[in-house]
Amino acid sequence: MKLKHYSDAEEQSVTDYSSTETTIRWLITKENEGAPRFALRRFEIQPGGQIGIHNHPQEHEIYCLGGKGEVFTHFEKVVMSKDDVLYVPPEEPHGYTNIGDEPFIFLCVIPYL
Amino acid sequence: MKLKHYSDAEEQSVTDYSSTETTIRWLITKENEGAPRFALRRFEIQPGGQIGIHNHPQEHEIYCLGGKGEVFTHFEKVVMSKDDVLYVPPEEPHGYTNIGDEPFIFLCVIPYL
Repeated sequence: MKLKHYSDAEEQSVTDYSSTETTIRWLITKENEGAPRFALRRFEIQPGGQIGIHNHPQEHEIYCLGGKGEVFTHFEKVVMSKDDVLYVPPEEPHGYTNIGDEPFIFLCVIPYL
Repeated sequence: MKLKHYSDAEEQSVTDYSSTETTIRWLITKENEGAPRFALRRFEIQPGGQIGIHNHPQEHEIYCLGGKGEVFTHFEKVVMSKDDVLYVPPEEPHGYTNIGDEPFIFLCVIPYL
């Protein structure tokens, strides 16, 4: 077993997809833990920040830890807050905006393809 | 996208592996969301409760949401609390005991093999 605190993972800025005020920590990875199939990441988007809309072949399984965020596609949007759970299917375009006054924090699992 | 609150998922008792005072909610699954590769579950173990030691071919990626738990193998044990992250490799025997005064709550991702 390999244990860490989330803050032991390096906090990195996210700048792809015109993202702003966003960081990612890769908590469990193939490289560090030897996880063969999927990675666990923790995102933090500051108030007013966003991750621009994008798509990819990997699905997402998301759990909100705090704050209030809008997750949007080209056709719909949903609002997430603490203890909400979201599934984003493969290839579905998606983006995120913090619409609250606190950091919008969520876990996001993504497969290695 | 498919959004829910964690409490929208049915809470089920866990009785395998001599487990006690433990429930599981399957938050994202192949059956309900069409998730092709892995499932997101939320466990809650009440004070004094446990999940007995067991093993299987699937790895676990675990994030602690609250409480204090001991996770043990035949050879080691670690203590987890809020915002700790644990990787359990495929086939490694593991069990869990709530050693605190509050519910020990964690997310656990498991692949479909």
